[in-house]
Amino acid sequence: MSALKYQFNNDYSELAHPQVLAALSAVGYSQFEGYGLDEYCLKAIDLIREKTAMPTADVHFASGGTHANLIVLAASLRPFEAVIATTLGHINTHETGAIEATGHKICPVAEKDGKLTAGDIQAIVDYHEGEHMVKPRAVYISQSTELGSVYNRAELTALHECCKANGLYLYADGARLGAAINSQWCDLSYADFANLVDAFYIGGTKNGAIYGEAIVIINDEIKPAFRYYLKQHGALLAKSAGMGIQFTALFTEGLYDDLARHANSMGARLAAGITGLGYELLSPIQTNQVFPILPASIVEQLHKIYGFHDWESYGETAAIRLVASWATKEEKIDQFLEDLAALS
Amino acid sequence: MSALKYQFNNDYSELAHPQVLAALSAVGYSQFEGYGLDEYCLKAIDLIREKTAMPTADVHFASGGTHANLIVLAASLRPFEAVIATTLGHINTHETGAIEATGHKICPVAEKDGKLTAGDIQAIVDYHEGEHMVKPRAVYISQSTELGSVYNRAELTALHECCKANGLYLYADGARLGAAINSQWCDLSYADFANLVDAFYIGGTKNGAIYGEAIVIINDEIKPAFRYYLKQHGALLAKSAGMGIQFTALFTEGLYDDLARHANSMGARLAAGITGLGYELLSPIQTNQVFPILPASIVEQLHKIYGFHDWESYGETAAIRLVASWATKEEKIDQFLEDLAALS
Amino acid sequence: MSALKYQFNNDYSELAHPQVLAALSAVGYSQFEGYGLDEYCLKAIDLIREKTAMPTADVHFASGGTHANLIVLAASLRPFEAVIATTLGHINTHETGAIEATGHKICPVAEKDGKLTAGDIQAIVDYHEGEHMVKPRAVYISQSTELGSVYNRAELTALHECCKANGLYLYADGARLGAAINSQWCDLSYADFANLVDAFYIGGTKNGAIYGEAIVIINDEIKPAFRYYLKQHGALLAKSAGMGIQFTALFTEGLYDDLARHANSMGARLAAGITGLGYELLSPIQTNQVFPILPASIVEQLHKIYGFHDWESYGETAAIRLVASWATKEEKIDQFLEDLAALS
Amino acid sequence: MSALKYQFNNDYSELAHPQVLAALSAVGYSQFEGYGLDEYCLKAIDLIREKTAMPTADVHFASGGTHANLIVLAASLRPFEAVIATTLGHINTHETGAIEATGHKICPVAEKDGKLTAGDIQAIVDYHEGEHMVKPRAVYISQSTELGSVYNRAELTALHECCKANGLYLYADGARLGAAINSQWCDLSYADFANLVDAFYIGGTKNGAIYGEAIVIINDEIKPAFRYYLKQHGALLAKSAGMGIQFTALFTEGLYDDLARHANSMGARLAAGITGLGYELLSPIQTNQVFPILPASIVEQLHKIYGFHDWESYGETAAIRLVASWATKEEKIDQFLEDLAALS
Repeated sequence: MSALKYQFNNDYSELAHPQVLAALSAVGYSQFEGYGLDEYCLKAIDLIREKTAMPTADVHFASGGTHANLIVLAASLRPFEAVIATTLGHINTHETGAIEATGHKICPVAEKDGKLTAGDIQAIVDYHEGEHMVKPRAVYISQSTELGSVYNRAELTALHECCKANGLYLYADGARLGAAINSQWCDLSYADFANLVDAFYIGGTKNGAIYGEAIVIINDEIKPAFRYYLKQHGALLAKSAGMGIQFTALFTEGLYDDLARHANSMGARLAAGITGLGYELLSPIQTNQVFPILPASIVEQLHKIYGFHDWESYGETAAIRLVASWATKEEKIDQFLEDLAALS
Repeated sequence: MSALKYQFNNDYSELAHPQVLAALSAVGYSQFEGYGLDEYCLKAIDLIREKTAMPTADVHFASGGTHANLIVLAASLRPFEAVIATTLGHINTHETGAIEATGHKICPVAEKDGKLTAGDIQAIVDYHEGEHMVKPRAVYISQSTELGSVYNRAELTALHECCKANGLYLYADGARLGAAINSQWCDLSYADFANLVDAFYIGGTKNGAIYGEAIVIINDEIKPAFRYYLKQHGALLAKSAGMGIQFTALFTEGLYDDLARHANSMGARLAAGITGLGYELLSPIQTNQVFPILPASIVEQLHKIYGFHDWESYGETAAIRLVASWATKEEKIDQFLEDLAALS
Repeated sequence: MSALKYQFNNDYSELAHPQVLAALSAVGYSQFEGYGLDEYCLKAIDLIREKTAMPTADVHFASGGTHANLIVLAASLRPFEAVIATTLGHINTHETGAIEATGHKICPVAEKDGKLTAGDIQAIVDYHEGEHMVKPRAVYISQSTELGSVYNRAELTALHECCKANGLYLYADGARLGAAINSQWCDLSYADFANLVDAFYIGGTKNGAIYGEAIVIINDEIKPAFRYYLKQHGALLAKSAGMGIQFTALFTEGLYDDLARHANSMGARLAAGITGLGYELLSPIQTNQVFPILPASIVEQLHKIYGFHDWESYGETAAIRLVASWATKEEKIDQFLEDLAALS
Repeated sequence: MSALKYQFNNDYSELAHPQVLAALSAVGYSQFEGYGLDEYCLKAIDLIREKTAMPTADVHFASGGTHANLIVLAASLRPFEAVIATTLGHINTHETGAIEATGHKICPVAEKDGKLTAGDIQAIVDYHEGEHMVKPRAVYISQSTELGSVYNRAELTALHECCKANGLYLYADGARLGAAINSQWCDLSYADFANLVDAFYIGGTKNGAIYGEAIVIINDEIKPAFRYYLKQHGALLAKSAGMGIQFTALFTEGLYDDLARHANSMGARLAAGITGLGYELLSPIQTNQVFPILPASIVEQLHKIYGFHDWESYGETAAIRLVASWATKEEKIDQFLEDLAALS
């Protein structure tokens, strides 16, 4: 990787924020309970309940997002029940069939700017009738989405109401929840957000932790026996304290939001610079992910000096994905923009 | 937990060895590849291949042992195939049906001192014939076992030969592999051990790491597509570097073995003291787990000052489990023995 | 098969009772609904509700017993829940891991004369605590058992009460339910039986039908969505009428019981003749299955003239299984006994 | 159902052809082997091998189509592998997630006249790369399709070649294979067809049998252990003879093709009459399924006198599905056309 000036592939390229590492190092040889019952997990749970204004929420930890997704859905769905997601939904495309491997069908819907609408959901529900078809029972969204967009209050309320009307759980993949809530396009607090969904997870891995996601369960129906699901799928870590310590560090003194705001701000700077050079974006910039459409020849040149993902090819042009992170320094953005300008 | 003088519940009560934490803190803001392809994982893989004298072994990382077990067996077995294990085998009793949840039957066998014999395996194989029964295809052992015992060269060779003769994979749960290899009752090096099994994992969590187990695949048949299984089950962590860094720290300069030897030595001290007081052990002391049989009244008193698991009750007496760890200080052992003597 | 005088391998060697075949032939080109909603299924459901005095029972049809077992248990258990069965239980030994393939562990218990006791169940329940272990939620019994024995009222009531006290569903595999209820050792009517279990199936295949088992669900908790489970597992046959017609024939004018009584009577005649020759039985004769213990040399000779299963070898002697059926003629029994006497 | 003049809902509304029933009745009290090994299954297997000119094909029987589909795909796919199908594919819409319940994702593709093209398959294959996504490994088609259309030689050859080039199994759901092969639009014999796919099933239920589908496996890779899959999923019926007898009857003296030709001919008569009245068809008539587009008001009237499925509503007009069967008499078609003319 040393040959590249910087890599914008994703927001998990740097290990962890110094405060997170310091917190891990601080505990020394003190002894803890295991399996999510240690004092640090309990502290982190308190902080998250407070942050979401959900004193009765159940909070659990898993080491990664695919794991969190499959476990929440396994605990929510009976064998013949299905989950609705966009065709771009992470569970539909990039989790190697993890949901199907636990026995459940995903009903895919074409997205618009990465998002689902209540109308999309209703159409899927209406299509499924009787025991010859699966029964949609949950809706999966990503906040922020795979295209970096966010659901605002009106949009999420519409999904919430549609789900309630149809007996569907609304589950949100919050791998980048910090980026979403701290986006200027998002008029939802954590509490507002938690109030509109049945379960979600708060991503640690993509916002300053080494590993770990905090699963938050709002709906009482999904709570019972959740620890059985965690254990059965291998997510109930013996040294849960490792995640408790990290989330405590992230949710003390606003570190989690600070990091997310920084990532968003770097994304905005990148987007502004790129559009300033006359290029268009595939999807509006709302968080830390930027999808510029560039001449294919420039993309080829850029690959020699920066790391990033090719998103979609249109022949002469191509969309690429650039991700800014909690750790991205302004100077890297400026260097990239300078290099892009030079290639343009 | 503060009310107790020490807890001997398990070997994952302290977070991590200082050298492991220091290694994590040392990487700063450098950028890594994700998903097991980072330079630290590659380094750790090299170290493990070297340690096991298996240059062509495939090495992968998972955050916990249950996860490692279910993924290796999912990758090894076709839907109608089963795995043989002792009734005490961790997969049979303490993983919430994780193996069955991936579709596979466990064929249980009564253990002796926690161990399986070739005769046990052969009997199970002979019993199963034809398509009305599952087909045994793998054998699961723990090294060291759930009773703290170890398979020595003769025992493991017998299992190996029986497995080869019957077309069975031999898979070893190495949650406490360090304790086993460094036991004076074990005449096997890592290389000897690796040579006699088809796959195993080296436990990090119980020997100084915050989290992480290294899965080592020897048999070429189990290698292909293994990363698909990791991802599908949520084990392919984005920031794999976290595990790469820890295993690199553990396998540089012999730290992993030093920690295991310390745990064993503390276990031996505990066992010697207890038998010195005239008590018997349920299972011979060979590693860091001690199973004394004590009067029930003393067990009750001990619970007020120490943490430990009740193992089995016999009315007037009961077996308990005491686990010493890489972090247990000699003085804690001595204090315990003193307290036990006072109660006796 | 022509070389053998008769085969006592099982009770499904002859196709179907003439009245069953006549009923199938009688419907001509009349049209039916599909998927269990046809008039013949509805008629059969009425007859079965009447027979069991369970007017609110749900009744469904599946083509075979393994299918019925796996579907009822799939509908009864959540992913982390397990079913208790004897080590000889058909689901534990002879269904190729069908229960595990739907994700559930079977907790095996050593049987006595093929049967479970309340004490066995309680011990399993007590052993399982917390989310590191599966949660027993159902008990599987066979009535009659794999050894031909039957649960009487006292025994089944004890199981029933133990299950209620522990929140367990009691499910009975009734592949040979007719033989059980019509056994002189069984003081239970169909109604008594249905009153003591949560679900069961009435076997058609082993008692005069070409194919088909009637699943009877007593407990309201298991009823909802059952048709989804049937369809998902491929059991919701388009031409359900085929099973409705057969069960209507079997449950009109007592044919089902007549056939079962005949099979039992042939079993009794066989057992009496064998014990009259001085041989012992492995398990008391209570229905249509007989397990004589014979000299191995005689077993070898018998195999040349009769079909039957070897059950267990003890060196010089061996237990074999002889099954009489609804179709077995008295003269075949007498011929067998004559041949056995000649070999003795 | 008596209130309706006739029902065109499907091709499984009448029980079975008289020759099939006669064959079942003819066997009397003769004894058979069980589980697919009886003489009638062996005879039927011979007839099917002969019909398909595939002397080394493996042939198995299952009671229904959903069952056949899920078992063949379970035996073909490893856990991370997926199957490509059209959005209308029976496995994708009308089998209650049976494929996902065995752990596999279906990759859906928009159909054209019910059919897939090689280009569709290639696009799906190209989209999937690496272990973060499922790996397409099989293609599912229906012959004839859910819209009554058929793949001809050129189309099927293109699919075959695309599958071979990409390492995909080509599996055909032949619930209505007789209708397809006997369609005038289909220039494929059974042998031609069998030569271009890896596995398929020949539907009995929709073409004169009471129940039963014959699974034919061409590709050696799918053959081993297939009986284990049958048994594990509850498809290995004890009295397999019931299916052997029926398929023997169907494939002796060309009955199977006669029945399919009759159904096609009735479909053609229906289609000709409807288009003769000036109505259009949603999909070209090629077999026994007709999809006329009629004024909604006429559809409403028709529902009072005939049974059929509503397919798709367009407001003022609607497509309906009419299915003619092996048992449909010409006079029923003519009556329907007369009634439709009267309503028009």
